[in-house]
Amino acid sequence: MTIERPAIQSFQPPVRTLMGPGPSDVPPRVLSALARPTVGHLDPSFVGMMDEVKTLLRYAFQTRNDLTFPVSGPGSLGMETCFVNLVTPGDKVIVCVNGVFGGRMVENVRRLGGTPVIVEDAWGEPVDPAKVEDAFKANPDARLFAFVHAETSTGALSDAATLAAIARRHDALTIMDCVTSLGGVPVLLDEWGIDAAYSGSQKCLSCTPGLSPVSFSEAAVARIRARTTPCPSWFQDLGLVLGYWSGAKRTYHHTAPVNPLYGLHESLVILAEEGLEAAWQRHRDNHLRLAAGLQKLGLDFVVREDARLPQLNTVWVPQGVDEAACRARLLNEFGLEIGAGLGALAGKVWRIGLMGHSSRASNIALCLAALETVIRG
Amino acid sequence: MTIERPAIQSFQPPVRTLMGPGPSDVPPRVLSALARPTVGHLDPSFVGMMDEVKTLLRYAFQTRNDLTFPVSGPGSLGMETCFVNLVTPGDKVIVCVNGVFGGRMVENVRRLGGTPVIVEDAWGEPVDPAKVEDAFKANPDARLFAFVHAETSTGALSDAATLAAIARRHDALTIMDCVTSLGGVPVLLDEWGIDAAYSGSQKCLSCTPGLSPVSFSEAAVARIRARTTPCPSWFQDLGLVLGYWSGAKRTYHHTAPVNPLYGLHESLVILAEEGLEAAWQRHRDNHLRLAAGLQKLGLDFVVREDARLPQLNTVWVPQGVDEAACRARLLNEFGLEIGAGLGALAGKVWRIGLMGHSSRASNIALCLAALETVIRG
Repeated sequence: MTIERPAIQSFQPPVRTLMGPGPSDVPPRVLSALARPTVGHLDPSFVGMMDEVKTLLRYAFQTRNDLTFPVSGPGSLGMETCFVNLVTPGDKVIVCVNGVFGGRMVENVRRLGGTPVIVEDAWGEPVDPAKVEDAFKANPDARLFAFVHAETSTGALSDAATLAAIARRHDALTIMDCVTSLGGVPVLLDEWGIDAAYSGSQKCLSCTPGLSPVSFSEAAVARIRARTTPCPSWFQDLGLVLGYWSGAKRTYHHTAPVNPLYGLHESLVILAEEGLEAAWQRHRDNHLRLAAGLQKLGLDFVVREDARLPQLNTVWVPQGVDEAACRARLLNEFGLEIGAGLGALAGKVWRIGLMGHSSRASNIALCLAALETVIRG
Repeated sequence: MTIERPAIQSFQPPVRTLMGPGPSDVPPRVLSALARPTVGHLDPSFVGMMDEVKTLLRYAFQTRNDLTFPVSGPGSLGMETCFVNLVTPGDKVIVCVNGVFGGRMVENVRRLGGTPVIVEDAWGEPVDPAKVEDAFKANPDARLFAFVHAETSTGALSDAATLAAIARRHDALTIMDCVTSLGGVPVLLDEWGIDAAYSGSQKCLSCTPGLSPVSFSEAAVARIRARTTPCPSWFQDLGLVLGYWSGAKRTYHHTAPVNPLYGLHESLVILAEEGLEAAWQRHRDNHLRLAAGLQKLGLDFVVREDARLPQLNTVWVPQGVDEAACRARLLNEFGLEIGAGLGALAGKVWRIGLMGHSSRASNIALCLAALETVIRG
């Protein structure tokens, strides 16, 4: 043999408390679901479970959209699934950038041969609707509008209802990133008139990472059906994926990630048991508790009060504090993960997540006590 | 609320014996690994595990390729990762089609603006090297060559060493689909000179579906680096993915599917414990046992003896037998899944998998006894 066999043992991960920007703590019920016996992806029992996942996702997204299902990959693939199906070469797309993930949307548009019109806001600010209105007036031929509902890189929440209404008035379809918002704050696709939305399994749904729930309105499906150029991605072509996820005959497209979908199903059952309103309330209440404690520690928020995400609290690292060393101590001494800054905020902020199962009193108590220890040195 | 909360319970899958074309039976060790506590995708312990996964995959693929890692999605996404990075618009690509998955390669090339030159063989036949040689002579400007090592739709094994050598003589890079071959029959990337290979987690590795191990040679990486047009997919752009999977600084690209990767790690540890040669021998031995039993039942193989995949046994459904009704009885009475035919073979064949953990004496005994019952009515 060219390559000898490596002597590597089974991996036993450490037990962490996950209070970064995701993954969040995964409840034992979801972990147990992952370990249930694997069945075939065309097994009648599995097909029935898929239908339940779609129903549960429609509840989470508050939509009647038929085309609502989990993409077999992480949130970034869900993002790409929206763009690769809706953007055709030459399309003008108004994209709001107020953090890392808006920038990634721009990147998607460019690679697909579209022309992005960038509406920029400072990192930490929500998207400014007046700028979006101006962008549409300057670009009446824009066919698509895209924004991030909850910017994971900054912790800012934008006003989705207002933004989508502007796009609708200008006859553009709206793509919304709700990776971090879904399950933590209201996400009301139908009420707001969102045409394409994507999320992630590992944030406020508290499933493991690797799946991306998406939903498409009838207008979005009509736009996709009217394409004259083929979708450049075979894997993400919704025309093909549809044959597997809906319709009477389940046409084989790709092998669905069976056990990860068990986990997503369980996490959505947990969300439905709690109820969306109760989950939103819990996220709000715990955010206020954490914020009060952080202020006592002298930590200031990056985002102004009315635009703060309850599930993602971004604070400035105090002067003279070694941010990376603090995070290392939190991890090594307390088994606690919090997030570092990304992009323009790298080295300057901490991102403290209270997402899904992580949004609970014991996590807040641990986090505040541990932070106090490491900040005071 | 627009959408009321659904009353859906936790999902308890039935226990199946999986002898279709994948997923195969997942051993309890792998299921347990999936349920281990989730850590962050940038956690030092997780980064260490990723390095082990890469080492274990290099052993499985028999390669020294640095760029060897699992794509965060199913095998079809692994396929697309190879094509989207290596095919640029206008490229001529020689593609062998002897079943469904060769056809999917053609589809990938077309959507990326490449020109496929199709080398066709009958379904059930291995790829004919003479036809490949002719195709290269007729198309000296072909820059890429692609074939399926083990056609999952037919059960035919092609001669990878000979095919890759032809491509090398004509200065083309070789992409090989080894979704069904990896772990079941020899896959020797370096010895054969394969430039890009992709596989799936749920076949002979006996992990759950959802991950796609890939490997790229230095020549493939050089070709990717020399691209003058950007990779149309942000998610699959290896230039970006590389920053996360290798290099000293782990740059955030996307959130890795943490728990599924625990499962893949465990399945690769199990493969290394058994040893590749022993695994190949076990697949061969069990194939011969099953084949003897199938012949006693009067079932004929679709593929000639010297090109049969030991891990995927495709037989003609006997005259007068209702193939779908038989599979339904196998599933409902015996909890046994075998595969139906795909594409041109739909309704005409059964595909009986002996992949990974499914390749064992008890499965063969069950399958033969149950098949005898349902065929005789």
